Amino acid sequence: MDINSIHTVVFIGAGNVASHLFEAFQNTGRTVVQVYSRSEISAKTLAEKYGTPYTCDLEQINKNADLYIISVSDAALPLIAQTMKTGDKLVVHTSGFHSMKAIEGVSENIGVFYPLQTFTKNRAVDLLTIPLCIEANSNASLGLLEDLALSFTPDVRMINSLQRKKIHLAAVFACNFTNHLYRVAEEIISSCDVPFDILKPLIKETANKVMNIHPHDAQTGPARRNDAAVMEQHLKMLDDDDNKELYVKISSMIRKEFEI
Amino acid sequence: MDINSIHTVVFIGAGNVASHLFEAFQNTGRTVVQVYSRSEISAKTLAEKYGTPYTCDLEQINKNADLYIISVSDAALPLIAQTMKTGDKLVVHTSGFHSMKAIEGVSENIGVFYPLQTFTKNRAVDLLTIPLCIEANSNASLGLLEDLALSFTPDVRMINSLQRKKIHLAAVFACNFTNHLYRVAEEIISSCDVPFDILKPLIKETANKVMNIHPHDAQTGPARRNDAAVMEQHLKMLDDDDNKELYVKISSMIRKEFEI
Repeated sequence: MDINSIHTVVFIGAGNVASHLFEAFQNTGRTVVQVYSRSEISAKTLAEKYGTPYTCDLEQINKNADLYIISVSDAALPLIAQTMKTGDKLVVHTSGFHSMKAIEGVSENIGVFYPLQTFTKNRAVDLLTIPLCIEANSNASLGLLEDLALSFTPDVRMINSLQRKKIHLAAVFACNFTNHLYRVAEEIISSCDVPFDILKPLIKETANKVMNIHPHDAQTGPARRNDAAVMEQHLKMLDDDDNKELYVKISSMIRKEFEI
Repeated sequence: MDINSIHTVVFIGAGNVASHLFEAFQNTGRTVVQVYSRSEISAKTLAEKYGTPYTCDLEQINKNADLYIISVSDAALPLIAQTMKTGDKLVVHTSGFHSMKAIEGVSENIGVFYPLQTFTKNRAVDLLTIPLCIEANSNASLGLLEDLALSFTPDVRMINSLQRKKIHLAAVFACNFTNHLYRVAEEIISSCDVPFDILKPLIKETANKVMNIHPHDAQTGPARRNDAAVMEQHLKMLDDDDNKELYVKISSMIRKEFEI
């Protein structure tokens, strides 16, 4: 066995990120030797897809894998980190939020393997197109993780814990909060019997624009033009107080950005 | 000449929407016979691209075109509507915000021709992929506009003034405000020396997700999971008070949506 690369993997966690990474590992000729989840149904569902052993008992974790990937919710990670021990085996977590140190009690060799993407059950995501952020507490481990990451995507980045926390925070705005704005738009549209699909080309083009244009230069709309008459009428049209407040808040931020 | 279709057009306005529509008209074999703008440099720049006459004097508008397209800013439209007279010539505006009636003093035959997209100077937009919302004050005019619109895109919709106003408001959330969130994310990312491009695959996938999944079902993130520890740390990491307020506001709206 080549000790300079990663062949066998144990997954701690069976959620969205774990499921997507699991598939990617299998597709690159590596072997997931075990799946752990505290929920038997989750462990079983994921593991049985590939005929992989699973367990719901952290004590029963396979001791001979090359890599242990902790891919659980941010809330559950600290508990796993307290309970799990692997000696000197390489252990990584996949969280954008937690620092590498969050798992320092688990092993002497730790790291982070954070795919910067939003994963949804039953929706294929091509790892090839997404950035993998890696970190490790030794150059040797970092080298192993880099080789591994490069087998999934050309976009591999050395990102420290502080940077990753900020990336994760930025992603809340660019992804989670953006999705909420889509939801508000959908509510407004449905209230006048127009299907949401009318907005889809606009949503796509808004995202595509910032692929080439800086978001500051891409800004358009009534707040950007400081068109008071339009903004006033928009506020009158909004029935929901939360939507009103949100409209006022973001419009004032845009006006401030452009000093108008 | 075939009086049942539109061959010659005058553009009132020379901004982003006018420029994009101008090109589309030329590409479908029609002729823009004149461009008006109160700014000579704007009128000239657009008109000279195709060797088209232009004017800065509303009195000098060509009286013999099949269609007059008023494509000026929402703020400028009322003034144009007061000044311009075309008798019974078909006149449309391209505003999402204004009702059809905003131009009823201009002609007996009026309508709206609203392309639902964000247009940026020097950025090509394929009309083929965008919805064109049309309205008119007679069936004859509506038929003419429908034929015209269908020569640009298969996605032609009959949308009345109230619906269009709501679509326009929804577009502010789905496009203008979304772009502002990209801007906030960019600020956060730059503060830790990570290039904005790391977020691009996430931004694309967030938009792509709602092409097939309802925004309610696509929602992810700390607020969706009601992960108080993550949200608290995020607030501590935000230096800017506006960004903090925005974080609190949207997170509370997401929690309310999911009753958590």
